[in-house]
Amino acid sequence: MSKKIKKIGVLTSGGDAPGMNAAIRSVVRTCAYHEIECVGIYRGFEGLIEADFKPLSARSVNNIIHTGGTMLKSARCQEFRTDEGRQKAHENLKNANIDALVIIGGDGSFNGGLVFNKAFNFPIIGIPGTIDNDIFGTNFTLGFDTAINTVVEVIDKIRDTASSHKRLFFVEVMGRDVGHIALNAGVGAGAEEILIPEEDLGLERLLESLRRSKKSGKSSSIVVVAEGDKIGKNVFELKDYVEENMPEYDVRVSVLGHMQRGGSPSCFDRVLASRMGVKAVETLLEGKTNFMVGIIDNKITLTPLEKAVKGKTEINKELLRVSDIMTT
Amino acid sequence: MSKKIKKIGVLTSGGDAPGMNAAIRSVVRTCAYHEIECVGIYRGFEGLIEADFKPLSARSVNNIIHTGGTMLKSARCQEFRTDEGRQKAHENLKNANIDALVIIGGDGSFNGGLVFNKAFNFPIIGIPGTIDNDIFGTNFTLGFDTAINTVVEVIDKIRDTASSHKRLFFVEVMGRDVGHIALNAGVGAGAEEILIPEEDLGLERLLESLRRSKKSGKSSSIVVVAEGDKIGKNVFELKDYVEENMPEYDVRVSVLGHMQRGGSPSCFDRVLASRMGVKAVETLLEGKTNFMVGIIDNKITLTPLEKAVKGKTEINKELLRVSDIMTT
Amino acid sequence: MSKKIKKIGVLTSGGDAPGMNAAIRSVVRTCAYHEIECVGIYRGFEGLIEADFKPLSARSVNNIIHTGGTMLKSARCQEFRTDEGRQKAHENLKNANIDALVIIGGDGSFNGGLVFNKAFNFPIIGIPGTIDNDIFGTNFTLGFDTAINTVVEVIDKIRDTASSHKRLFFVEVMGRDVGHIALNAGVGAGAEEILIPEEDLGLERLLESLRRSKKSGKSSSIVVVAEGDKIGKNVFELKDYVEENMPEYDVRVSVLGHMQRGGSPSCFDRVLASRMGVKAVETLLEGKTNFMVGIIDNKITLTPLEKAVKGKTEINKELLRVSDIMTT
Amino acid sequence: MSKKIKKIGVLTSGGDAPGMNAAIRSVVRTCAYHEIECVGIYRGFEGLIEADFKPLSARSVNNIIHTGGTMLKSARCQEFRTDEGRQKAHENLKNANIDALVIIGGDGSFNGGLVFNKAFNFPIIGIPGTIDNDIFGTNFTLGFDTAINTVVEVIDKIRDTASSHKRLFFVEVMGRDVGHIALNAGVGAGAEEILIPEEDLGLERLLESLRRSKKSGKSSSIVVVAEGDKIGKNVFELKDYVEENMPEYDVRVSVLGHMQRGGSPSCFDRVLASRMGVKAVETLLEGKTNFMVGIIDNKITLTPLEKAVKGKTEINKELLRVSDIMTT
Repeated sequence: MSKKIKKIGVLTSGGDAPGMNAAIRSVVRTCAYHEIECVGIYRGFEGLIEADFKPLSARSVNNIIHTGGTMLKSARCQEFRTDEGRQKAHENLKNANIDALVIIGGDGSFNGGLVFNKAFNFPIIGIPGTIDNDIFGTNFTLGFDTAINTVVEVIDKIRDTASSHKRLFFVEVMGRDVGHIALNAGVGAGAEEILIPEEDLGLERLLESLRRSKKSGKSSSIVVVAEGDKIGKNVFELKDYVEENMPEYDVRVSVLGHMQRGGSPSCFDRVLASRMGVKAVETLLEGKTNFMVGIIDNKITLTPLEKAVKGKTEINKELLRVSDIMTT
Repeated sequence: MSKKIKKIGVLTSGGDAPGMNAAIRSVVRTCAYHEIECVGIYRGFEGLIEADFKPLSARSVNNIIHTGGTMLKSARCQEFRTDEGRQKAHENLKNANIDALVIIGGDGSFNGGLVFNKAFNFPIIGIPGTIDNDIFGTNFTLGFDTAINTVVEVIDKIRDTASSHKRLFFVEVMGRDVGHIALNAGVGAGAEEILIPEEDLGLERLLESLRRSKKSGKSSSIVVVAEGDKIGKNVFELKDYVEENMPEYDVRVSVLGHMQRGGSPSCFDRVLASRMGVKAVETLLEGKTNFMVGIIDNKITLTPLEKAVKGKTEINKELLRVSDIMTT
Repeated sequence: MSKKIKKIGVLTSGGDAPGMNAAIRSVVRTCAYHEIECVGIYRGFEGLIEADFKPLSARSVNNIIHTGGTMLKSARCQEFRTDEGRQKAHENLKNANIDALVIIGGDGSFNGGLVFNKAFNFPIIGIPGTIDNDIFGTNFTLGFDTAINTVVEVIDKIRDTASSHKRLFFVEVMGRDVGHIALNAGVGAGAEEILIPEEDLGLERLLESLRRSKKSGKSSSIVVVAEGDKIGKNVFELKDYVEENMPEYDVRVSVLGHMQRGGSPSCFDRVLASRMGVKAVETLLEGKTNFMVGIIDNKITLTPLEKAVKGKTEINKELLRVSDIMTT
Repeated sequence: MSKKIKKIGVLTSGGDAPGMNAAIRSVVRTCAYHEIECVGIYRGFEGLIEADFKPLSARSVNNIIHTGGTMLKSARCQEFRTDEGRQKAHENLKNANIDALVIIGGDGSFNGGLVFNKAFNFPIIGIPGTIDNDIFGTNFTLGFDTAINTVVEVIDKIRDTASSHKRLFFVEVMGRDVGHIALNAGVGAGAEEILIPEEDLGLERLLESLRRSKKSGKSSSIVVVAEGDKIGKNVFELKDYVEENMPEYDVRVSVLGHMQRGGSPSCFDRVLASRMGVKAVETLLEGKTNFMVGIIDNKITLTPLEKAVKGKTEINKELLRVSDIMTT
């Protein structure tokens, strides 16, 4: 029988994402609502090993719902991958009377959590926080909606200058080895072409598409390229290739980079984070462990963490088709 | 047997919403993709009666996906409620060889479309465009996501000044007789209390809640009030009531008003509009009529327009509960 | 001879304005640069009387340059208007070994500071922080540039919906009894008419102007009204008057309210605040008192506080003329 | 004696900048106000040679004041550097009865205008439009204020993720061979170090500064690098150098690129553009030529174009010092 949970620790791990602070706030307030204690663990698993803990009251998370980044910081931690490191972490949790963990992060963080749970039978629940939307068991990860808004706002600005000068821009966006950000932000920004790892367009068809677009009267073009796409070795080589083959184009590259990870979260991400935080705490209070909270078909759900880390997300085929039709 | 569709008219009607231009663009481009003609009808049903038509090519909708408002304009039209008005409209459509209509608007507009269809057996499809999210048959209407982002951004600003001065703000948001904007934006903005027509909190419990919030150490408070809420006669009387009963509070009112209807659409609204426009045109091409395109559980769906105009949306009970927990 | 200054107190008073935190940060860091101590005084003069003090290190103001509001809070304080209140304040300062004060606020706050200086010969320097830009001795007050950006962004949104519906909007903006926000944001937003207290247009000429605008082919109009303008009793009566006399217009009102006081400061306001904070501290270190830091012709300047509180700012006549020409 | 001016042409040339559309609108409306004609010349000098002209009425520039880019497009044009090219341009202007030109652009464009004026005694006036603020004879060029706001907004986002992960970011900003954007946006964004071509910090001192910052307790750092800075060969080599010498830092690079040129202009840029457009037209109407409109000490001024293209802007020494103090 599982021990009654009286104190929950919360940490953020891996790449940060907008909405993490809103999720922390929700975990803290839900603990307060159920009259249990909540402890913030700083710098992810590193802070677990170094006992970098701080009690969090309902008031301590005032005025953070709208902020980017994570107030608990995040870090990569090699030591947590060793038995010794995890042992230290477990002792620190015991000493602090922490009974369970909420881990806000991506699949790497969830894997770490699973290994930890197996070693010590320590209750853990995951909340998917990453802008990449690459986690199985949820339609949306925290930060994805904000990131695609950031990208379309930036491309709106780039389009101003592109269309003033008849230029072709390659805009590289994040997403690790999946194309969710590229596809959604590309459609949202009205990109002429979207290059994602899930679809191999091929260089020849890219040129054809650009030629067709030019012939149809478009004087400027935006091509959104997912960082994981393999059409060229990278976006700069892509530029060189197109310039060689279409000298009529003045080609520019913009690599959006880390700005995509920051910024005030969108309303959707704040609401989603609030809902997920409640579910994470209440799932632990029900005596469950090793689940990831997700949102599927607008409902807050639980997926076994093992499935979440092994499963693959799929690209929305219908949206791919919409993208093709829009660039007619 | 339904006549083959070669030319589609598109209009926007009722209150405008961000994403309408993205939907128009999608309708136009989908027509081009299927090699049929598309005609823009200006000023809603008024333009139908006055034959205010203009052919729209794929290029004519360049650079509108990111704009607010509606390039086709919108208008209220009494004449379309008469047999004579609709007769004129029908003749204009026949003269222009328009075979079907895509109506982007709310339930009032869909009602008009249904009556028109019954009178002349004229094919119509609706796309739900309103910030209020009050239409049955879709989880999200076009413009809702943008509007809640606009509201949280404004409340973030108001909170800066509220927390600098220990003030209580009543912020009135749109939503006609439903509380979707208030509930979502209220949770997203971290409001201390959210007043919506679907729930009668009562003045006494509002005071209790504010007193509890004050006692818990909060020095400033934001209360989000849906315009359809009936707790006070209006938000100004609410202010007077609270000031009388809690003289320790410096109370202010902010009525957000029409800014909620404008602005560049969010990525979500742009993508949703693009998907809905494709579905609307392709549904007409399949020979169907009297459906509304919607999004349910992340899938683009069709709902009979009759159901859409009669059905009621429901407030998300789980989110209501999350809201209560967050204000612990 | 003035005593050597080793510890400076800083407070914000009156209405808050974006850039106040950047100014606090600058005061704190400049003290650290000159190796003297800095103390934050919370809640303006109220905190002075209640000895609500906290030492501020260079690191304690990390990550506030981009935030709205004031981390030191602000408050109105009746007690500071009495000899007794000021006496308490002075004792608290002596007990805390604070040698001088930087007061960030508007003319009311500067007046309080002057009275305090006269009573106790206590060194003070003012930094003009108010969105209204109504302080003599500086071309720009802190927060003004941010506020006019906020206003044009909101009016851009309102225009989306106004032009979709052929509507006339009266948009009331802040500014107390001067029209600087209205004039600048009105020109920036492309308003058809701008009503400010410095110019009495008269109701009849307003109607004429609106009729001319309508005749010229404009289908929607934005009229920006300064809160201090006296053309109608208030903006709602103005609406009624115009609707009676121009029934062809669908008139709406939007009172922007307190959102104009919040938000992340513009780059201009952050830079200005940084410059003013340096000058304020270094002026005190030079043994001077009773000056207000300002920016005149792009140079950081000093104006005697007495002049600053008595002088009047003037409306830019050239910009008034530009406004007239733009609405041709 | 100069001929009476009855028709003015307006063009944008060189890199586009936010506020160009507001300036075009102002030129057009000022012509309408003075009851003379205005003609838009598309694609800069290229359009002059190809007679790509279109009359612009006061209504044709509705709803562009808030847009980025330039509705008249811009282009580089080799042919205008030849006698033959300029000859064609002059004939086109004569054929179209255009009596004078307003050139909105940078020093390259002004040089082209001067040569043209010398050849044909054709009246021209320049309006400085470039985000770089590198033109002598004006405190601010059109687009600079918007660009520095864009940069600080992006760095605010980058700081979210930098401070979540203890990272050092090099952020490269535009500015050609001057550091105005870097210095202003660097101070506004609270950068720990700002590298500009006007000051040679040296690699060794950069390392010292970063070490001092780290020791003082800062866990993350932003270094803003002007594109014209020569401290390293480029920003990526700078990264490599620092990583080699400070392995404790996780260093990232972000090259902001063309997004800095786009976006809706700030209120300041819209107002400035409106004022400059009036002055440009009225200066031509007074029979003057070869001047650049500028803003010096808040007043609209005229500078001989020859001076404008030869003079150099200077970096604000006081702001450099403020920057040093802020990073204490």
